[in-house]
Amino acid sequence: MGPEIKVLLQKISRLPGLGPRSARRIVLHLLKHKNELFEPLMMCFSDVFNNVKVCPRCHNVDTFIDCCSICADRSRSRDIICIVENVADLWAIERTACFRGQYHVLNGLLSSVEGRGPEALFLDQLLERCQENDAKEIIIALSVTVEGQMTDHYIKNFFSDKNMKVSSLAHGIPMGGELDYLDEGTLSTAFFARN
Amino acid sequence: MGPEIKVLLQKISRLPGLGPRSARRIVLHLLKHKNELFEPLMMCFSDVFNNVKVCPRCHNVDTFIDCCSICADRSRSRDIICIVENVADLWAIERTACFRGQYHVLNGLLSSVEGRGPEALFLDQLLERCQENDAKEIIIALSVTVEGQMTDHYIKNFFSDKNMKVSSLAHGIPMGGELDYLDEGTLSTAFFARN
Repeated sequence: MGPEIKVLLQKISRLPGLGPRSARRIVLHLLKHKNELFEPLMMCFSDVFNNVKVCPRCHNVDTFIDCCSICADRSRSRDIICIVENVADLWAIERTACFRGQYHVLNGLLSSVEGRGPEALFLDQLLERCQENDAKEIIIALSVTVEGQMTDHYIKNFFSDKNMKVSSLAHGIPMGGELDYLDEGTLSTAFFARN
Repeated sequence: MGPEIKVLLQKISRLPGLGPRSARRIVLHLLKHKNELFEPLMMCFSDVFNNVKVCPRCHNVDTFIDCCSICADRSRSRDIICIVENVADLWAIERTACFRGQYHVLNGLLSSVEGRGPEALFLDQLLERCQENDAKEIIIALSVTVEGQMTDHYIKNFFSDKNMKVSSLAHGIPMGGELDYLDEGTLSTAFFARN
């Protein structure tokens, strides 16, 4: 096969969740449907590539003109802001359709290993935004990992004297979770947080 | 999320082996590494898209100028031609590195359902090529399915009076295959073809 195809296969096989076999399947599928699939896909790629930006308000990564579709959506409440680690988590919450406020995307957690200190969370900018919009509530929706919980704690502390209501997502037994299969940490957390 | 990203996610999730979740992972990964990954990938895509052609000799799909890299490779024997269904099968045989001849890619089998008759196999063109290069041997490497075996049979019949040696890949127990787990068809085939 030609060098161009080899390089493309290599690049695709390194994408998350893919390997050499799936890369071959995808490339052959695209080559087979060159006009119906390959060309439109390339156009979509360049549309996204050329238009994607980081929203100056919430740091969401999106294609937009002034600010991302969530910040621009007038039907969404500006009183309540949900803090998420990254865009994947934002999309996950959007899929639940249970939150109609705004977001603040950290694009990374506090991490001494990666050298991300508190300034990387842009909490001053968030506070300013809260004051501008008279927002009164913050929901922290971070992963339950050491770094996630450390960041959660730091944010709570930061807002403690700012006259805001700050809450975190509940920890406990997931839907469909069977007690017998849960780890001890989750089970004991659920026990102490019983309501 | 913006409409461009939505359309891209939809297109990627329809590629073989992918779904909405893997599409999201891939797109977010690309957005996160816009300059190191996204841009080079797009350039590879357009390189392949602009240069890919069907080889006029063997019908392999490849990026090339006059004929595909296998037809152009002077170190490969022109005496022996292997007939495969599609480029995926050609790549599979190339990975074994056990064949150093040329190919004839059918790009589909005989199929009454899909209305593919014998003319779609381009056997006359293959015969001409064999005569030009004084090729004396044909290896038929088609899948062991009804359509594959029908096509195999038709090709054998076509070459029966052309003074060529025509063989098909052996059928039998795959490497690492345990008798107890094999289907009856494979086992009885292996039995009758014992050597």
